[in-house]
Amino acid sequence: MSKPSPLSGFPELLPAQRFVEQSVIDSMRRTFELHGFAPVETRAVETLDQLLRKGETSNEVYVLRRLQTDPDDPSQPGDLGLHFDLTVPFARYVLENAGKLEFPFRRYQIQKVWRGERPQEGRFREFTQADIDVVMKDELPFHFDVEVARVMAEALSVLPLPPMRLRVNNRKLIEGFCLGLAVPEPADVIRLIDKLDRLPEATVGDLLVAEAGLDDAQAQQCLALAAISSIDGSFAERVRSLGVQHELLETGLAELGAVVQGCRVVNNERFEVQASLGLARGLDYYTGTVFEIYMKGFESLKSVGGGGRYDALASDGKTTYPGVGISFGISRTLIPLITRGLLSGSRAVPSAVLVALPDEESRAAADEVAQQLRASGVATEVAASAQKFGKQIRHAERRGIPFVWFFTVADNGAIAGHSVKDIRTGEQLDADPATWRPADADLTPQVIHAPTPAEETS
Amino acid sequence: MSKPSPLSGFPELLPAQRFVEQSVIDSMRRTFELHGFAPVETRAVETLDQLLRKGETSNEVYVLRRLQTDPDDPSQPGDLGLHFDLTVPFARYVLENAGKLEFPFRRYQIQKVWRGERPQEGRFREFTQADIDVVMKDELPFHFDVEVARVMAEALSVLPLPPMRLRVNNRKLIEGFCLGLAVPEPADVIRLIDKLDRLPEATVGDLLVAEAGLDDAQAQQCLALAAISSIDGSFAERVRSLGVQHELLETGLAELGAVVQGCRVVNNERFEVQASLGLARGLDYYTGTVFEIYMKGFESLKSVGGGGRYDALASDGKTTYPGVGISFGISRTLIPLITRGLLSGSRAVPSAVLVALPDEESRAAADEVAQQLRASGVATEVAASAQKFGKQIRHAERRGIPFVWFFTVADNGAIAGHSVKDIRTGEQLDADPATWRPADADLTPQVIHAPTPAEETS
Repeated sequence: MSKPSPLSGFPELLPAQRFVEQSVIDSMRRTFELHGFAPVETRAVETLDQLLRKGETSNEVYVLRRLQTDPDDPSQPGDLGLHFDLTVPFARYVLENAGKLEFPFRRYQIQKVWRGERPQEGRFREFTQADIDVVMKDELPFHFDVEVARVMAEALSVLPLPPMRLRVNNRKLIEGFCLGLAVPEPADVIRLIDKLDRLPEATVGDLLVAEAGLDDAQAQQCLALAAISSIDGSFAERVRSLGVQHELLETGLAELGAVVQGCRVVNNERFEVQASLGLARGLDYYTGTVFEIYMKGFESLKSVGGGGRYDALASDGKTTYPGVGISFGISRTLIPLITRGLLSGSRAVPSAVLVALPDEESRAAADEVAQQLRASGVATEVAASAQKFGKQIRHAERRGIPFVWFFTVADNGAIAGHSVKDIRTGEQLDADPATWRPADADLTPQVIHAPTPAEETS
Repeated sequence: MSKPSPLSGFPELLPAQRFVEQSVIDSMRRTFELHGFAPVETRAVETLDQLLRKGETSNEVYVLRRLQTDPDDPSQPGDLGLHFDLTVPFARYVLENAGKLEFPFRRYQIQKVWRGERPQEGRFREFTQADIDVVMKDELPFHFDVEVARVMAEALSVLPLPPMRLRVNNRKLIEGFCLGLAVPEPADVIRLIDKLDRLPEATVGDLLVAEAGLDDAQAQQCLALAAISSIDGSFAERVRSLGVQHELLETGLAELGAVVQGCRVVNNERFEVQASLGLARGLDYYTGTVFEIYMKGFESLKSVGGGGRYDALASDGKTTYPGVGISFGISRTLIPLITRGLLSGSRAVPSAVLVALPDEESRAAADEVAQQLRASGVATEVAASAQKFGKQIRHAERRGIPFVWFFTVADNGAIAGHSVKDIRTGEQLDADPATWRPADADLTPQVIHAPTPAEETS
């Protein structure tokens, strides 16, 4: 067969790049588990009626059929499609297993999803995302909004990636503000505010008048609200200075303040929380807190994550399951960084050591040396063939293996001595394979950052 | 929506069960990386022409189409299907990236695959497998056969699963034996020997005469060869006692002996290697070593893994890439054990500690205590609400959380004291959240084995 070409929208990584992805996934998993979030993995497929309940996403769904369908096979399931997010499968999983789960149910889910979209930078047809959600029966206390925000904040703040910004807002705040202004239909205002990142402010102002029935003063007030943002609790004072009053507005201000405050404990140079009162998120089902995640310096990628509170994640008619959650796009952040050469792994193999082979007869001895190193957690491979040592060293060099191990064999066949060479410095020292260990930074492949381009600023 | 039903052939796990699967995957990954195998993940889809190159599997392939295809979209790729194994995608990946890989290329790949088969125990439509392969350009030295066997042996020997048996044979041995017997078509003999695990020996003997053109004496010799097995090198003597001689037979005996010897260093009560001269494996493309993996006590599941050497894993017309590899069925082993109640996780959440909440006003203090515990690696959650302590303890009990943490608040709002209760023993002791740590066995969810049923024996 001839050399195959990549498929557009289905990114694949070379091994050194895959180390980067794995280290991001491992790091997020560790943070989520430290906070008591349980791992869930759902099947890749859902029935089409589950996938199409929201209607609007129908053109994104990949439908499955067996190449040779057997009409007599009663076990052939109905129409199936690949999931396009992790929320629809999770809602189905909660309903299906409700009797076996303890609520509040905290879960994380890190999996691939598929969308038949037109591929573009940061938008793929197959991609990995990491979701956390807390789900309750009947009623979910507000403090879980703070919790999921803080857990995601902590997870993002330790990633080997450019700094992240979590933008937060609250639907109750916008809705209460509208009610205080006596706006006829707050939902229309939310829908139009959501257009602010694509349309000029003046155009949105015109739409608020033309489509949402606001007068000019109301429209100006809504735009003034949407322009407010702060990385601390000072947004509340600026909202109050607009002079609008409503009980629901106060609830929204208090909730937003609590989320921002809750995340500030993890604020560092790698993570920033921002109350962002122009953030609306288009989807109908959010009922309070809403989130979006941006990668600082890479705002052209748009949001790389988002979420919020939904008072009815799932319902079986008798019980309603409210939830709050955030999703982070692993492929959406990593692939553009890797493609631009800004992120890579330090080597293409896990091996920290290559055991050099003096001759093919010494392979068993070399295997034993390697096994001793592995026993203390040092990933080790043995040279593929007993070429000249110079060639074996260059072989290690090409893979980024930092150390080459040499041993000498006495006339009686026993190993007479060991030494290990750091091939970056050329330094070669005697060593004992039972106790030697490289520096932690050399033990496993590391994530390497190129400097972030200065022209892309937030 | 009403309660959804599971889809036959698409198994899903509850969180406690998912811990078991994760610990198996983590353990295999650790072993593979210690031996220098690099991680690869390929996209879930391949083009249909790649998937159908072998022909016979066509009815197992799930084909994708977009629900609403857009004929004007030039980026819409050709017909795509979900991969049904990890070998076809890996061969494609090697060809596509050959210029960027260093050979010998060791890779592991742990991923889901999909087959439109009729579901039955241990056979699913979506399942996870773990593959290791070593691939070379042009020629792959034999010692890599020993290496992949030993790495998989080591990986299997440390799994929290019933003991595994790796059965090994060598096509050169069978072929050389046939040539020494002057059998007309050794490939026919291999194909018929492969039927021995489904048909009585006498029937296979008849087929060797009727279909492969052997005389009775030749057929008896082939059956005598196929009956030989040993967990050490003694098979060679028993083969030689059959009196057949051929150079290729000697090569096969030496290779098989080397693989068995190489694996014996990991032999323990959880792993056994067995030279098994009746093992043929049906597939055409194996050219030397062949493997199958069985779970001891669960032979009714048939093989739970397999592999071998293929002298042409991939070829682009100019360069041929020989390989040797083994695949292990993670779902195929885990799901039946979990379904039978023989394997489970010790708890449904990662949390080792639940911080009890004296009242809702103390939530910030409780969060701080939890954060101190997490800083030393102890997964911790805070109680969902300030119920009576008895209720909070029962909440922890239902999830299998072993410890409940109590703190008292002084009149000035500062924390006055801490204690931690082991809810299994009732013992409660003063503790410092900055330094306290549970026993390792309580730190993370553990894999729990029920005793293996005595009636299922090997």
